[in-house]
Amino acid sequence: MEPINLGNALASFDALWSPRIVTTVNDYDIRVAKVRGEHLWHAHDHTDEFFLVLEGELEIALEERTVRLGQGDVFVVPRGARHKPSSRGGARIMVVEPSGTSSVGDRHEEVPEHVDATTGHALGEDV
Amino acid sequence: MEPINLGNALASFDALWSPRIVTTVNDYDIRVAKVRGEHLWHAHDHTDEFFLVLEGELEIALEERTVRLGQGDVFVVPRGARHKPSSRGGARIMVVEPSGTSSVGDRHEEVPEHVDATTGHALGEDV
Repeated sequence: MEPINLGNALASFDALWSPRIVTTVNDYDIRVAKVRGEHLWHAHDHTDEFFLVLEGELEIALEERTVRLGQGDVFVVPRGARHKPSSRGGARIMVVEPSGTSSVGDRHEEVPEHVDATTGHALGEDV
Repeated sequence: MEPINLGNALASFDALWSPRIVTTVNDYDIRVAKVRGEHLWHAHDHTDEFFLVLEGELEIALEERTVRLGQGDVFVVPRGARHKPSSRGGARIMVVEPSGTSSVGDRHEEVPEHVDATTGHALGEDV
């Protein structure tokens, strides 16, 4: 592979809550996403999910609390934990999770129209 | 866990080429390291290795070419590939690899004194 700049990767698409797979490490994806507004309550039954905020601010609501992440902050949602990401002002994030992991998890509320239920799109895919 | 700021994590230690485990995702580590000068030629026989440059510039020499990474660039060294990271001006990096992965790989040249052969230290560990 050639090196990939995360800023360039994020500049290559506009869709919100629609992660792109930048590269893979063994059977894990490195994904980036643009987010704004609210995602949905969901849980991944079989995997943790790692978040890094590249720009902006991200909130992750958990059952018992809400964590607030700024630029350069990382957080891991433990497997099985219901969570709902949101970003009032918008954010750019990097996510690490096993390839094939759905963006809406294994259990989720009804998927709103502005959320892309996906296992991640290829960079450059027209979505 | 509480959110962790990567800048704060990097500010908590001085050692070069001595990765700290910021958090884990399933059985993978998220590590950060400060680097300057040359690492050593080594290879991981059983795992890919993901690099993200947070600050500065990192070169990764491979058998057949050298890749140059600036801030925000990512690169994956494929399993089995001999490689030698270096940074003339210094860099701060994030690495993703399976927990237990040695910083000097499974095959390596003699480890110089300025390189820490480790599977990663805990944040706050006095090393």
